[in-house]
Amino acid sequence: MQAIEFYFDPISPFAYLGSVQIERVAARLGREVDWKPVLIGVTVLKVMGLKPVPETPLKGPYMQQDAVRLAEYFDVPFRYHGLKGINALAALRAFLMLKQRDAALAKSFARRIFDRLWVRGLNITPPEAVAEEASALGIDAQALLRDIETDHAKGTLKQAVDAAIQKGVFGVPWFVVDGQPIWGVDRMWMVEHWARHHSWRHA
Amino acid sequence: MQAIEFYFDPISPFAYLGSVQIERVAARLGREVDWKPVLIGVTVLKVMGLKPVPETPLKGPYMQQDAVRLAEYFDVPFRYHGLKGINALAALRAFLMLKQRDAALAKSFARRIFDRLWVRGLNITPPEAVAEEASALGIDAQALLRDIETDHAKGTLKQAVDAAIQKGVFGVPWFVVDGQPIWGVDRMWMVEHWARHHSWRHA
Repeated sequence: MQAIEFYFDPISPFAYLGSVQIERVAARLGREVDWKPVLIGVTVLKVMGLKPVPETPLKGPYMQQDAVRLAEYFDVPFRYHGLKGINALAALRAFLMLKQRDAALAKSFARRIFDRLWVRGLNITPPEAVAEEASALGIDAQALLRDIETDHAKGTLKQAVDAAIQKGVFGVPWFVVDGQPIWGVDRMWMVEHWARHHSWRHA
Repeated sequence: MQAIEFYFDPISPFAYLGSVQIERVAARLGREVDWKPVLIGVTVLKVMGLKPVPETPLKGPYMQQDAVRLAEYFDVPFRYHGLKGINALAALRAFLMLKQRDAALAKSFARRIFDRLWVRGLNITPPEAVAEEASALGIDAQALLRDIETDHAKGTLKQAVDAAIQKGVFGVPWFVVDGQPIWGVDRMWMVEHWARHHSWRHA
Protein backbone atom coordinates (compact mmCIF):
# COMPACT_ATOMS: atom_id res chain seq x y z
CA MET A 1 0.00 0.00 0.00
CA GLN A 2 1.20 3.48 -0.87
CA ALA A 3 2.34 5.75 1.95
CA ILE A 4 0.17 8.74 2.83
CA GLU A 5 2.02 11.90 1.78
CA PHE A 6 2.26 14.57 4.44
CA TYR A 7 3.48 18.00 3.28
CA PHE A 8 4.70 20.22 6.09
CA ASP A 9 6.48 23.42 6.96
CA PRO A 10 7.46 23.72 10.63
CA ILE A 11 6.50 27.40 10.73
CA SER A 12 2.80 26.50 10.56
CA PRO A 13 1.01 25.69 13.83
CA PHE A 14 -1.53 23.73 11.81
CA ALA A 15 1.23 21.64 10.23
CA TYR A 16 2.46 20.94 13.75
CA LEU A 17 -0.97 19.78 14.86
CA GLY A 18 -1.24 17.79 11.63
CA SER A 19 2.11 16.10 12.26
CA VAL A 20 0.71 14.62 15.45
CA GLN A 21 -2.71 13.81 14.03
CA ILE A 22 -1.54 12.12 10.82
CA GLU A 23 0.53 9.58 12.72
CA ARG A 24 -2.50 8.73 14.88
CA VAL A 25 -4.69 8.33 11.77
CA ALA A 26 -2.03 6.34 9.88
CA ALA A 27 -1.64 3.99 12.83
CA ARG A 28 -5.39 3.32 12.79
CA LEU A 29 -5.22 2.67 9.04
CA GLY A 30 -2.03 0.62 9.21
CA ARG A 31 -0.40 2.94 6.68
CA GLU A 32 3.03 4.56 6.43
CA VAL A 33 3.44 8.35 6.26
CA ASP A 34 5.93 9.98 3.88
CA TRP A 35 6.91 13.40 5.26
CA LYS A 36 7.60 15.99 2.53
CA PRO A 37 8.86 19.48 3.31
CA VAL A 38 7.70 22.70 1.66
CA LEU A 39 8.45 26.36 2.21
CA ILE A 40 4.88 27.53 2.43
CA GLY A 41 5.79 31.23 2.54
CA VAL A 42 7.33 30.95 -0.92
CA THR A 43 4.15 29.42 -2.32
CA VAL A 44 1.80 31.90 -0.66
CA LEU A 45 3.77 34.97 -1.66
CA LYS A 46 5.31 34.09 -5.01
CA VAL A 47 2.87 31.64 -6.55
CA MET A 48 -0.47 32.68 -5.06
CA GLY A 49 0.29 36.39 -4.67
CA LEU A 50 -1.14 36.57 -1.18
CA LYS A 51 0.23 37.91 2.09
CA PRO A 52 1.18 35.62 4.97
CA VAL A 53 -1.79 34.57 7.08
CA PRO A 54 -0.47 36.12 10.34
CA GLU A 55 -0.30 39.49 8.56
CA THR A 56 -3.76 39.23 7.02
CA PRO A 57 -6.37 41.44 8.72
CA LEU A 58 -9.13 39.52 10.54
CA LYS A 59 -7.71 36.14 9.49
CA GLY A 60 -4.42 36.48 11.40
CA PRO A 61 -5.91 36.76 14.89
CA TYR A 62 -8.63 34.20 14.15
CA MET A 63 -6.13 31.58 13.02
CA GLN A 64 -4.08 32.06 16.17
CA GLN A 65 -7.15 31.53 18.36
CA ASP A 66 -8.13 28.58 16.18
CA ALA A 67 -4.79 26.80 16.56
CA VAL A 68 -5.02 27.13 20.34
CA ARG A 69 -8.48 25.60 20.57
CA LEU A 70 -7.67 22.82 18.10
CA ALA A 71 -4.63 21.88 20.18
CA GLU A 72 -6.88 21.77 23.23
CA TYR A 73 -9.44 19.64 21.40
CA PHE A 74 -6.78 17.25 20.02
CA ASP A 75 -5.07 17.19 23.42
CA VAL A 76 -1.72 18.15 21.91
CA PRO A 77 0.82 20.26 23.86
CA PHE A 78 0.99 23.68 22.23
CA ARG A 79 1.75 27.29 22.90
CA TYR A 80 2.18 30.39 20.82
CA HIS A 81 5.72 31.64 20.56
CA GLY A 82 6.14 35.37 20.01
CA LEU A 83 8.94 34.92 17.48
CA LYS A 84 9.08 37.00 14.29
CA GLY A 85 10.76 36.30 10.97
CA ILE A 86 11.28 32.59 11.52
CA ASN A 87 11.88 30.25 8.62
CA ALA A 88 12.65 26.58 8.27
CA LEU A 89 15.20 26.74 5.46
CA ALA A 90 18.11 25.21 7.37
CA ALA A 91 15.89 22.75 9.22
CA LEU A 92 14.26 21.48 6.03
CA ARG A 93 17.56 21.11 4.19
CA ALA A 94 18.76 19.09 7.17
CA PHE A 95 15.56 17.04 7.11
CA LEU A 96 16.10 16.12 3.46
CA MET A 97 19.77 15.27 3.95
CA LEU A 98 18.80 12.98 6.84
CA LYS A 99 15.93 11.49 4.85
CA GLN A 100 18.30 10.37 2.10
CA ARG A 101 20.04 8.19 4.66
CA ASP A 102 17.29 7.25 7.10
CA ALA A 103 13.64 8.30 6.72
CA ALA A 104 12.72 7.38 10.30
CA LEU A 105 15.55 9.44 11.73
CA ALA A 106 14.57 12.39 9.52
CA LYS A 107 11.03 12.16 10.85
CA SER A 108 12.29 12.17 14.45
CA PHE A 109 14.33 15.23 13.61
CA ALA A 110 11.33 17.02 12.07
CA ARG A 111 9.26 16.17 15.14
CA ARG A 112 11.92 17.77 17.35
CA ILE A 113 11.87 20.91 15.17
CA PHE A 114 8.08 21.12 15.50
CA ASP A 115 8.37 20.55 19.24
CA ARG A 116 11.12 23.14 19.58
CA LEU A 117 8.98 25.85 18.01
CA TRP A 118 5.44 24.96 19.12
CA VAL A 119 6.00 23.41 22.53
CA ARG A 120 9.29 24.81 23.83
CA GLY A 121 8.83 28.17 22.02
CA LEU A 122 12.44 28.33 20.75
CA ASN A 123 13.62 29.69 17.42
CA ILE A 124 14.20 27.15 14.64
CA THR A 125 15.80 29.50 12.11
CA PRO A 126 19.55 29.56 12.90
CA PRO A 127 21.83 26.63 12.04
CA GLU A 128 22.57 26.33 15.77
CA ALA A 129 18.95 25.31 16.33
CA VAL A 130 19.35 22.57 13.73
CA ALA A 131 22.59 21.46 15.37
CA GLU A 132 21.01 21.28 18.82
CA GLU A 133 18.07 19.14 17.73
CA ALA A 134 20.31 16.89 15.63
CA SER A 135 22.72 16.38 18.53
CA ALA A 136 19.87 15.40 20.80
CA LEU A 137 19.21 12.50 18.41
CA GLY A 138 22.84 11.42 18.37
CA ILE A 139 23.43 12.83 14.89
CA ASP A 140 26.83 14.34 14.05
CA ALA A 141 25.72 17.98 14.09
CA GLN A 142 28.88 19.47 12.63
CA ALA A 143 28.75 17.15 9.62
CA LEU A 144 25.05 17.98 9.16
CA LEU A 145 25.74 21.73 9.25
CA ARG A 146 28.37 21.24 6.54
CA ASP A 147 25.92 19.11 4.54
CA ILE A 148 23.15 21.71 4.49
CA GLU A 149 25.47 24.33 2.99
CA THR A 150 26.16 22.20 -0.09
CA ASP A 151 24.61 22.85 -3.49
CA HIS A 152 23.21 19.35 -3.28
CA ALA A 153 21.23 20.19 -0.13
CA LYS A 154 20.02 23.51 -1.50
CA GLY A 155 19.03 21.90 -4.80
CA THR A 156 17.24 19.04 -3.07
CA LEU A 157 15.03 21.41 -1.06
CA LYS A 158 14.35 23.63 -4.06
CA GLN A 159 13.34 20.56 -6.04
CA ALA A 160 11.03 19.40 -3.24
CA VAL A 161 9.37 22.82 -3.03
CA ASP A 162 8.93 23.04 -6.81
CA ALA A 163 7.52 19.51 -7.00
CA ALA A 164 4.96 20.34 -4.30
CA ILE A 165 3.85 23.47 -6.16
CA GLN A 166 3.54 21.42 -9.35
CA LYS A 167 1.23 19.06 -7.47
CA GLY A 168 -0.88 22.02 -6.33
CA VAL A 169 0.14 22.06 -2.68
CA PHE A 170 -0.67 25.57 -1.40
CA GLY A 171 -1.19 25.05 2.31
CA VAL A 172 -0.01 22.91 5.20
CA PRO A 173 -0.69 20.41 6.49
CA TRP A 174 -1.43 18.86 3.11
CA PHE A 175 -2.08 15.18 2.60
CA VAL A 176 -2.27 12.99 -0.47
CA VAL A 177 -3.94 9.68 0.15
CA ASP A 178 -4.39 7.31 -2.78
CA GLY A 179 -4.34 10.18 -5.26
CA GLN A 180 -6.67 12.48 -3.32
CA PRO A 181 -5.27 15.87 -2.21
CA ILE A 182 -6.53 17.00 1.19
CA TRP A 183 -5.67 20.30 2.85
CA GLY A 184 -5.97 21.10 6.51
CA VAL A 185 -5.65 19.61 9.96
CA ASP A 186 -9.43 19.80 10.24
CA ARG A 187 -9.69 17.33 7.35
CA MET A 188 -8.13 14.27 8.92
CA TRP A 189 -11.58 12.66 8.75
CA MET A 190 -11.34 12.93 4.94
CA VAL A 191 -7.93 11.23 4.91
CA GLU A 192 -9.40 8.38 6.89
CA HIS A 193 -12.63 8.21 4.89
CA TRP A 194 -10.86 8.18 1.51
CA ALA A 195 -8.31 5.59 2.63
CA ARG A 196 -11.10 3.29 3.76
CA HIS A 197 -13.71 3.78 1.00
CA HIS A 198 -12.08 5.44 -2.03
CA SER A 199 -15.32 7.30 -2.44
CA TRP A 200 -16.98 10.32 -0.83
CA ARG A 201 -20.35 8.64 -0.63
CA HIS A 202 -21.24 7.12 2.67
CA ALA A 203 -21.29 3.34 2.81
CA MET B 1 -31.11 29.85 24.52
CA GLN B 2 -29.38 32.14 22.06
CA ALA B 3 -29.74 31.41 18.36
CA ILE B 4 -26.68 30.17 16.47
CA GLU B 5 -25.54 32.93 14.12
CA PHE B 6 -24.97 31.85 10.53
CA TYR B 7 -23.21 34.36 8.28
CA PHE B 8 -23.65 33.69 4.59
CA ASP B 9 -23.15 35.02 1.11
CA PRO B 10 -24.97 33.04 -1.60
CA ILE B 11 -22.02 33.33 -4.00
CA SER B 12 -20.00 30.86 -1.88
CA PRO B 13 -20.50 27.14 -2.53
CA PHE B 14 -19.28 26.47 0.99
CA ALA B 15 -21.91 28.84 2.42
CA TYR B 16 -24.48 26.89 0.41
CA LEU B 17 -23.28 23.59 1.88
CA GLY B 18 -23.19 25.24 5.29
CA SER B 19 -26.77 26.48 4.93
CA VAL B 20 -27.94 22.89 4.65
CA GLN B 21 -25.62 21.52 7.32
CA ILE B 22 -26.31 24.15 9.99
CA GLU B 23 -30.02 23.45 9.97
CA ARG B 24 -29.31 19.72 10.46
CA VAL B 25 -26.94 20.49 13.35
CA ALA B 26 -29.30 23.03 14.92
CA ALA B 27 -32.15 20.53 14.77
CA ARG B 28 -30.03 18.00 16.67
CA LEU B 29 -29.18 20.68 19.23
CA GLY B 30 -32.72 22.04 19.49
CA ARG B 31 -31.42 25.52 18.67
CA GLU B 32 -32.60 28.30 16.37
CA VAL B 33 -30.41 29.67 13.56
CA ASP B 34 -30.19 33.40 12.85
CA TRP B 35 -29.19 33.92 9.20
CA LYS B 36 -27.01 37.00 8.66
CA PRO B 37 -25.92 38.16 5.21
CA VAL B 38 -22.48 39.44 4.26
CA LEU B 39 -20.87 40.48 0.99
CA ILE B 40 -17.78 38.35 1.34
CA GLY B 41 -16.07 39.81 -1.75
CA VAL B 42 -16.03 43.24 -0.09
CA THR B 43 -14.34 41.84 3.01
CA VAL B 44 -11.77 39.78 1.10
CA LEU B 45 -10.79 42.57 -1.28
CA LYS B 46 -11.16 45.74 0.75
CA VAL B 47 -10.50 44.67 4.33
CA MET B 48 -8.11 41.74 3.93
CA GLY B 49 -6.41 42.91 0.72
CA LEU B 50 -6.62 39.49 -0.91
CA LYS B 51 -7.88 38.36 -4.28
CA PRO B 52 -11.05 36.26 -4.64
CA VAL B 53 -10.47 32.56 -4.01
CA PRO B 54 -11.58 31.44 -7.51
CA GLU B 55 -8.90 33.72 -8.98
CA THR B 56 -6.14 32.55 -6.63
CA PRO B 57 -3.59 30.23 -8.27
CA LEU B 58 -3.60 26.66 -6.91
CA LYS B 59 -6.35 27.46 -4.38
CA GLY B 60 -9.05 28.26 -6.95
CA PRO B 61 -9.15 24.84 -8.65
CA TYR B 62 -8.65 22.99 -5.35
CA MET B 63 -11.59 24.71 -3.70
CA GLN B 64 -13.83 23.85 -6.63
CA GLN B 65 -12.89 20.17 -6.40
CA ASP B 66 -13.33 20.35 -2.64
CA ALA B 67 -16.86 21.75 -2.81
CA VAL B 68 -17.87 18.95 -5.17
CA ARG B 69 -16.59 16.18 -2.91
CA LEU B 70 -18.00 17.77 0.25
CA ALA B 71 -21.43 17.95 -1.40
CA GLU B 72 -21.10 14.27 -2.26
CA TYR B 73 -20.04 13.42 1.29
CA PHE B 74 -22.86 15.48 2.85
CA ASP B 75 -25.30 14.09 0.27
CA VAL B 76 -26.41 17.57 -0.75
CA PRO B 77 -27.51 18.33 -4.36
CA PHE B 78 -24.86 20.52 -5.95
CA ARG B 79 -23.33 21.44 -9.26
CA TYR B 80 -20.89 24.05 -10.43
CA HIS B 81 -22.40 26.80 -12.52
CA GLY B 82 -20.12 28.46 -15.05
CA LEU B 83 -21.36 31.97 -14.28
CA LYS B 84 -18.97 34.89 -13.97
CA GLY B 85 -19.33 38.19 -12.15
CA ILE B 86 -22.24 37.16 -9.97
CA ASN B 87 -23.08 39.05 -6.80
CA ALA B 88 -25.80 38.82 -4.23
CA LEU B 89 -26.39 42.52 -3.64
CA ALA B 90 -30.05 42.59 -4.72
CA ALA B 91 -30.77 39.19 -3.19
CA LEU B 92 -29.31 40.14 0.20
CA ARG B 93 -31.11 43.48 0.33
CA ALA B 94 -34.29 41.55 -0.38
CA PHE B 95 -33.42 39.02 2.31
CA LEU B 96 -33.02 41.77 4.90
CA MET B 97 -36.24 43.53 3.89
CA LEU B 98 -38.11 40.24 4.22
CA LYS B 99 -36.37 39.45 7.52
CA GLN B 100 -37.69 42.68 9.06
CA ARG B 101 -41.20 41.35 8.50
CA ASP B 102 -40.82 37.58 8.80
CA ALA B 103 -37.53 35.81 9.58
CA ALA B 104 -38.81 32.38 8.52
CA LEU B 105 -39.96 33.71 5.15
CA ALA B 106 -36.59 35.44 4.65
CA LYS B 107 -34.82 32.16 5.34
CA SER B 108 -36.99 30.35 2.79
CA PHE B 109 -36.13 33.05 0.29
CA ALA B 110 -32.36 32.73 0.99
CA ARG B 111 -32.65 28.96 0.56
CA ARG B 112 -34.24 29.47 -2.84
CA ILE B 113 -31.42 31.84 -3.84
CA PHE B 114 -28.82 29.23 -2.79
CA ASP B 115 -30.75 26.56 -4.65
CA ARG B 116 -31.11 28.74 -7.73
CA LEU B 117 -27.35 29.21 -8.01
CA TRP B 118 -25.93 25.93 -6.70
CA VAL B 119 -28.54 23.40 -7.76
CA ARG B 120 -30.35 24.93 -10.73
CA GLY B 121 -27.25 26.82 -11.96
CA LEU B 122 -29.11 30.08 -12.67
CA ASN B 123 -27.84 33.61 -12.15
CA ILE B 124 -28.84 35.33 -8.90
CA THR B 125 -27.49 38.80 -9.72
CA PRO B 126 -30.28 40.64 -11.60
CA PRO B 127 -33.38 41.95 -9.81
CA GLU B 128 -35.45 39.64 -12.05
CA ALA B 129 -33.85 36.66 -10.30
CA VAL B 130 -34.90 38.08 -6.94
CA ALA B 131 -38.42 38.67 -8.28
CA GLU B 132 -38.72 35.11 -9.57
CA GLU B 133 -37.68 33.48 -6.31
CA ALA B 134 -39.87 35.84 -4.27
CA SER B 135 -42.90 35.14 -6.47
CA ALA B 136 -42.42 31.41 -6.03
CA LEU B 137 -42.93 31.97 -2.29
CA GLY B 138 -46.08 34.03 -2.81
CA ILE B 139 -44.30 37.31 -2.04
CA ASP B 140 -45.34 40.47 -3.92
CA ALA B 141 -42.27 40.68 -6.16
CA GLN B 142 -42.95 44.15 -7.57
CA ALA B 143 -43.23 45.63 -4.07
CA LEU B 144 -40.02 43.83 -3.05
CA LEU B 145 -38.12 45.19 -6.07
CA ARG B 146 -39.22 48.70 -5.11
CA ASP B 147 -38.19 48.03 -1.50
CA ILE B 148 -34.63 46.99 -2.34
CA GLU B 149 -33.99 50.23 -4.21
CA THR B 150 -34.69 52.37 -1.15
CA ASP B 151 -31.96 54.00 0.94
CA HIS B 152 -33.33 52.04 3.88
CA ALA B 153 -32.60 48.70 2.15
CA LYS B 154 -29.16 49.80 0.99
CA GLY B 155 -28.29 51.14 4.44
CA THR B 156 -29.54 48.00 6.17
CA LEU B 157 -27.28 45.75 4.09
CA LYS B 158 -24.31 48.07 4.49
CA GLN B 159 -24.84 48.08 8.24
CA ALA B 160 -25.03 44.27 8.29
CA VAL B 161 -21.80 43.95 6.29
CA ASP B 162 -19.99 46.46 8.50
CA ALA B 163 -21.20 44.79 11.68
CA ALA B 164 -19.93 41.42 10.46
CA ILE B 165 -16.49 42.87 9.67
CA GLN B 166 -16.44 44.45 13.13
CA LYS B 167 -17.06 41.01 14.59
CA GLY B 168 -14.16 39.60 12.57
CA VAL B 169 -16.16 37.62 10.02
CA PHE B 170 -13.85 37.09 7.03
CA GLY B 171 -15.19 33.92 5.44
CA VAL B 172 -18.40 32.02 4.89
CA PRO B 173 -20.00 30.01 6.19
CA TRP B 174 -19.27 31.57 9.56
CA PHE B 175 -20.97 30.58 12.76
CA VAL B 176 -21.12 32.11 16.20
CA VAL B 177 -22.31 29.73 18.86
CA ASP B 178 -22.45 30.96 22.45
CA GLY B 179 -19.73 33.54 21.80
CA GLN B 180 -17.39 31.24 19.85
CA PRO B 181 -16.61 32.22 16.23
CA ILE B 182 -16.29 29.25 13.89
CA TRP B 183 -15.38 29.45 10.21
CA GLY B 184 -16.01 26.82 7.61
CA VAL B 185 -18.44 24.13 6.56
CA ASP B 186 -15.83 21.56 7.66
CA ARG B 187 -16.17 22.83 11.22
CA MET B 188 -19.76 21.89 11.95
CA TRP B 189 -18.39 19.42 14.51
CA MET B 190 -16.98 22.39 16.43
CA VAL B 191 -20.35 24.15 16.42
CA GLU B 192 -21.92 21.04 17.89
CA HIS B 193 -19.10 20.39 20.36
CA TRP B 194 -19.08 23.95 21.70
CA ALA B 195 -22.87 24.10 21.98
CA ARG B 196 -22.86 20.91 24.05
CA HIS B 197 -19.77 21.38 26.23
CA HIS B 198 -18.69 25.06 26.20
CA SER B 199 -15.15 23.75 26.29
CA TRP B 200 -12.70 22.31 23.76
CA ARG B 201 -11.56 19.57 26.08
CA HIS B 202 -13.16 16.22 25.60
CA ALA B 203 -15.60 15.10 28.26
